[in-house]
Amino acid sequence: MHEKITLAHGSGGVEMQDLIEKLILTKFKPGKVGGGVGLIDMEDSATIPLGDVHVVVTMDSYTVNPIFFPGGDIGKLAITGTINDLVVKGAKPLAIMDSIVVEEGFSVSELNRILDSMRKIVKSEGIALIGGDFKVMPRGSLDQIVISTVGIGIAKANELLLDSNVKPGDAIIITGTIGEHGAVIMALQSGINVSSTTLRSDCEPLTKVMNIVVGVGGVHAAKDPTRGGLAMALNEMAKKSGVTIVIEEDKVPIRDEVKAYCEMLGIDPLVLACEGRALLAVSSDRADDIVEALRSEGYVDACIIGKAVQGRPGYVLMRTSIGGLVVVEPPRGEIVPRIC
Amino acid sequence: MHEKITLAHGSGGVEMQDLIEKLILTKFKPGKVGGGVGLIDMEDSATIPLGDVHVVVTMDSYTVNPIFFPGGDIGKLAITGTINDLVVKGAKPLAIMDSIVVEEGFSVSELNRILDSMRKIVKSEGIALIGGDFKVMPRGSLDQIVISTVGIGIAKANELLLDSNVKPGDAIIITGTIGEHGAVIMALQSGINVSSTTLRSDCEPLTKVMNIVVGVGGVHAAKDPTRGGLAMALNEMAKKSGVTIVIEEDKVPIRDEVKAYCEMLGIDPLVLACEGRALLAVSSDRADDIVEALRSEGYVDACIIGKAVQGRPGYVLMRTSIGGLVVVEPPRGEIVPRIC
Repeated sequence: MHEKITLAHGSGGVEMQDLIEKLILTKFKPGKVGGGVGLIDMEDSATIPLGDVHVVVTMDSYTVNPIFFPGGDIGKLAITGTINDLVVKGAKPLAIMDSIVVEEGFSVSELNRILDSMRKIVKSEGIALIGGDFKVMPRGSLDQIVISTVGIGIAKANELLLDSNVKPGDAIIITGTIGEHGAVIMALQSGINVSSTTLRSDCEPLTKVMNIVVGVGGVHAAKDPTRGGLAMALNEMAKKSGVTIVIEEDKVPIRDEVKAYCEMLGIDPLVLACEGRALLAVSSDRADDIVEALRSEGYVDACIIGKAVQGRPGYVLMRTSIGGLVVVEPPRGEIVPRIC
Repeated sequence: MHEKITLAHGSGGVEMQDLIEKLILTKFKPGKVGGGVGLIDMEDSATIPLGDVHVVVTMDSYTVNPIFFPGGDIGKLAITGTINDLVVKGAKPLAIMDSIVVEEGFSVSELNRILDSMRKIVKSEGIALIGGDFKVMPRGSLDQIVISTVGIGIAKANELLLDSNVKPGDAIIITGTIGEHGAVIMALQSGINVSSTTLRSDCEPLTKVMNIVVGVGGVHAAKDPTRGGLAMALNEMAKKSGVTIVIEEDKVPIRDEVKAYCEMLGIDPLVLACEGRALLAVSSDRADDIVEALRSEGYVDACIIGKAVQGRPGYVLMRTSIGGLVVVEPPRGEIVPRIC
């Protein structure tokens, strides 16, 4: 155990998982209510069984820096990320709460702009913001603003989509190009002016995407690859489901601009956060239908990027462009601080 | 509207209510799900009706400074405060989620100590910590740690205790001495060494207290007077219920040490936060029974401090020791920053 918390502990990779396992899981396990999904499951949402449904709950804190970026801001990101954690688990979002902590001296008009972004998503998604908290920290004790959010939804038990449910033979689908959110934030933090490019965060609610794919049927698991990117999400699915996942490098959809930033900044696009993409494991006989349904609804980059096989449990492999087979490790180190 | 956020905006008093009304309520109202309790009700918890129960949800962010204090720490305070927001609304707590944001360089052993405090309460209360989030902010961008928590409970509709339900004729009860939490934090922030005194934060779960009083019956409304203290809680009850509340200065239980600190630091004890006291409005014919039940269970300072009357809606009056009648205003200004 490290003596001091490092940025790597917050990056969503291996160090964070270790810290959570050592410090939190051991203390609070199993951390669940009845037959619900709990702490030990390390899912995007937890659930509380109640009558014939599960109340599905997710909580996150958003610390993104800068707070305004092409494609969104901390408010849009917070509401979107919360909705996405619910819908990828198969839940119907009902309500959100937010707790805003700002630094003394923070601009009221910027706060208002952030709240307007939040309202826009809350309204278009037809959910209610039912309450929250507001705190101010003295000047110098917080850089600008942290927004924490809770999402509350419901799902029937058989509608829940768990990371542990990937089956050998499943096709692995990504619903759009990867890494745009991560690339934008990383570029801005490096002092690169991205406003003259077409690069924007992919931050968007996944409600429509999940309705389409669940409508087609055959979905076994879904995840939004945020912190730690596709690499982390694939590794979590493979580990929890006890399968090997093999992806094809050539198939992973990625914009040229994101590729270029990754090369320039020396970072693997597979570890870059997405904030509006779903990673799916689906029954192979429905995979083409799902991709087609997504494309016909405007998600033109949706594609099958690989498959799950029996293999060595918990491994993620990638067939490279030149035909080699490499291990996709869960990310380590700092990646990008304050990415979300 | 102020152009910049001030500490007063986070103090739980008039400025905070104004900001929330202007910036948040107008944008998100009514902010409720079906016939539930929502944003517009400004209660300690919100509710979502589901089948024949309400799912009761509360969310808060804890920024207390210092993070360790006599009687508790930020972890105990976060879990306790969350439980208290549920039980004073009449709900049975089922689960908690936490989202921890720490500064890079934060000590792992201090984090562990905080998590141990959290576990202790979670365990003794028989609830589950079902998930959460963990983020790290770069050195210099956050002073130590912020913990956000969500509490999820259930209550039948007729068990909900709302601030708007105080009836003319009700007795007003406080379940213990006031202001200890506020006094400890204020003293520590002023550089006063309190460890040689018996002064401690009153931070404790109110589950047992609420079970006792609900067991006796006749409770119309309950509230934990945290930020803004008794003055704010009384004003909120009076305003939402459209009654006048009259309290007797001599009856308000307060420890000599708290009085002494208040005089020394020039602060009104009525605005100091409590973190383990319930303020109750109860049917006058059950008031003595409730106080007796509380005292017999060890809450020896529980007492009737006043009553609700028809009067001018939304007013709180106090009969002073020398017989005058003064208005207890909702607090304004900074009070104590980072009190909880």
